[in-house]
Amino acid sequence: MTAQIQTSQSAVRWYPPSFDIRVEQVPVPEINEPDDAIVKVKLAALCGSDLHIYRGHGGVTKVHICGHEFIGEVVKLGSSYGGPAQGRPDLYSTLKVGDKVVSPFTVSCGECSVCRLGYTCRCPHGALFGSPALEGGQAQYVRVPRAGGTLYNLSDTSSWSADQTATAALDKISESSLVLLADILPTGVFAAMQALSHPKVLTALTGRPCPLNFFPLRDLPAKQDALVQEDRTLTFAIVGLGPVGICAAVSLLDLLSVGQYPFRVVAIDPNESRREKMEAVYSKISPDGRGSGEFTVASIDDAKTTVHAWTSGVGCTAVLEVVGNNSALSLAYDLVRDFGAIISVGVHGANEVPFTGRQLYNKNVSLEFGRCPAHTMFPPAFDLLAKRQDIFGGVGDASNLIDRIVGLDEAPEMYRAFEKGQVGKVIFDPWK
Amino acid sequence: MTAQIQTSQSAVRWYPPSFDIRVEQVPVPEINEPDDAIVKVKLAALCGSDLHIYRGHGGVTKVHICGHEFIGEVVKLGSSYGGPAQGRPDLYSTLKVGDKVVSPFTVSCGECSVCRLGYTCRCPHGALFGSPALEGGQAQYVRVPRAGGTLYNLSDTSSWSADQTATAALDKISESSLVLLADILPTGVFAAMQALSHPKVLTALTGRPCPLNFFPLRDLPAKQDALVQEDRTLTFAIVGLGPVGICAAVSLLDLLSVGQYPFRVVAIDPNESRREKMEAVYSKISPDGRGSGEFTVASIDDAKTTVHAWTSGVGCTAVLEVVGNNSALSLAYDLVRDFGAIISVGVHGANEVPFTGRQLYNKNVSLEFGRCPAHTMFPPAFDLLAKRQDIFGGVGDASNLIDRIVGLDEAPEMYRAFEKGQVGKVIFDPWK
Repeated sequence: MTAQIQTSQSAVRWYPPSFDIRVEQVPVPEINEPDDAIVKVKLAALCGSDLHIYRGHGGVTKVHICGHEFIGEVVKLGSSYGGPAQGRPDLYSTLKVGDKVVSPFTVSCGECSVCRLGYTCRCPHGALFGSPALEGGQAQYVRVPRAGGTLYNLSDTSSWSADQTATAALDKISESSLVLLADILPTGVFAAMQALSHPKVLTALTGRPCPLNFFPLRDLPAKQDALVQEDRTLTFAIVGLGPVGICAAVSLLDLLSVGQYPFRVVAIDPNESRREKMEAVYSKISPDGRGSGEFTVASIDDAKTTVHAWTSGVGCTAVLEVVGNNSALSLAYDLVRDFGAIISVGVHGANEVPFTGRQLYNKNVSLEFGRCPAHTMFPPAFDLLAKRQDIFGGVGDASNLIDRIVGLDEAPEMYRAFEKGQVGKVIFDPWK
Repeated sequence: MTAQIQTSQSAVRWYPPSFDIRVEQVPVPEINEPDDAIVKVKLAALCGSDLHIYRGHGGVTKVHICGHEFIGEVVKLGSSYGGPAQGRPDLYSTLKVGDKVVSPFTVSCGECSVCRLGYTCRCPHGALFGSPALEGGQAQYVRVPRAGGTLYNLSDTSSWSADQTATAALDKISESSLVLLADILPTGVFAAMQALSHPKVLTALTGRPCPLNFFPLRDLPAKQDALVQEDRTLTFAIVGLGPVGICAAVSLLDLLSVGQYPFRVVAIDPNESRREKMEAVYSKISPDGRGSGEFTVASIDDAKTTVHAWTSGVGCTAVLEVVGNNSALSLAYDLVRDFGAIISVGVHGANEVPFTGRQLYNKNVSLEFGRCPAHTMFPPAFDLLAKRQDIFGGVGDASNLIDRIVGLDEAPEMYRAFEKGQVGKVIFDPWK
């Protein structure tokens, strides 16, 4: 089960304390455990959350290979592979050297209760790629622990797609866009799905007022008046228009359009170039992906005015917070209505969150925090990727999420420029 | 529409800055607005949240009549009543002098979008009884603004109960227990229903793992393995066993037993007498209201050990926080699992909540905060009250929620003793 591979490779490594990225020759990883796979990296991406460690905010001291978004090809497999499945995830039986794979940004075993419930990003056997706990994917090769539970196999979609639609869809998907499936597209879909499925959104979305929104307790003894259009119109804000924020916006618009729900969405960023990117992306979405609601892009102040005008001062049904700092959380609080939901997928740090108990009580606020279970969200993210190649498929023009594809040698400059907001989503081709 | 009533009455009044309760003669309230009703108070209760103002924590300076839990009889109605409904809530047409009513603890108009969605406790026309904004019910008479949207009529249940079951049930309900419908029983039901209906609980409860829990997005392209018993067993903690905590426990057990869900519940309080009350209440619940799961009452340390042992260290599916301070929130955080939900119905103060962004991100925690929309939750609370008269019906023994019924003249002493934890739920009979 081994292809002939080199013994030394190029890799992007982070050095403490901060802002120190070096491209170095390091040994190619080996199989350490029977469940390991070695993946030859085809493309790896630079992600906003890489900046936490880059800036020295993570309390990290260990030199390590960066990057948690990558796609590639299996070149070596541990001894767990190739036999009968024996109750383990399918890939332990079916994954082969040469298969093309997408790796979610964290390892998950696929065999524990946490994974079965779909909470794969918190698998007790898990780890984040590109962290002190696990070498990352901004390299020519990467070791994937528990690869049978972690990876998605693009060469054989039968383990995750019930019919042949995924294989057929792959023909239409650009290779560079597949790397979006490692993190940012599932995270955007996760934010949007959490927003639409929250009980405090379901009242308006389903027309079943509280307490009928408390699914699955359907036969409550309540007599309710019918809701009118004003009550049922969903108002959302998306705070932060980096790549994940744009993915969240595209996913939210898609879900709203599929459900034919009445809506208003404001997408917010203080950074003008990010707003322009969002505008350009929106202009490319075909009518079937936009729905029939209102969508606008705004600065912070304009957004407050817009939400106030739209809702007569009531506020947003839900706010998607895709930044990961306290200003974003405070803005979300200001924008959300009484009995509204704040859905935070931003990576937050060591500060206390900026809310008093009274503020949260007085607004009946709901808050959802945390990391996307990217393995779990892969199938719906894949579907959206296939459907929205108009947005995700290309590279380099104003309406593309991916700004450029460069070699690993440009990593130090790309980290610097990305941190300054001077480039958008950067993809590394380790073989360029 | 007016019965002959006196012009002066006894009332329990709060004086700044704190711990100063006086029983005084004050004028009987008058109709101020066409939508007002004057209610002759039959019973009024002392509630844990009255202690916030009592202790001087509310920043209140205005002398006012206390109390937000009361039942009574309509003695005077404004000019809005008695004509055709004209699209307004039924009570404007049907409520009559002499009708027996329960008042939820806040006013709600029943005619705005917020009310239609069921978020009645945040009605923009609302106010909290027994606050500087609105005189309370610990008196012989109380003015109820927008009474047609606010009150529940027990003399004619057709406006809120579709069939005759509510009227029939009333025959079996003790009068003193009706006052529990003003606040604490709806609040307990609200906590329990929020817990059971949260998307992070639905995975286990419905057996639909994430992302299938994202109702109503049912036809997601995901292939999922079946969950096993361990994954589907719900583990709950209830933090705080004051009267609302006990109501939350009884409601949670009822919902779990009706749904026949596998569960484990630990009910927690540092105060031994509160734990004993919870034990005594539990011992009175007939098997149909207990379900087939485990239920235990514990101190804080014992609860941690119990949850750890039950879940092999994973933690609680959801924690109900029924205290309203930061120690309770911190304990809830410690007890809740990754991808768990904290349901807080405690009244919180001016302190920042005790969580860093990283803590919330790292556990994928969900938080629900806020006041119960008691008007909305009245029908299911009424059903539970009728069903569980074994617990709620009596007064004064170890297993009763209501500790004693006293005259208003005992209010200063009862406030003092209640604040010290020396008495349980106290009801005032203003005519005693």
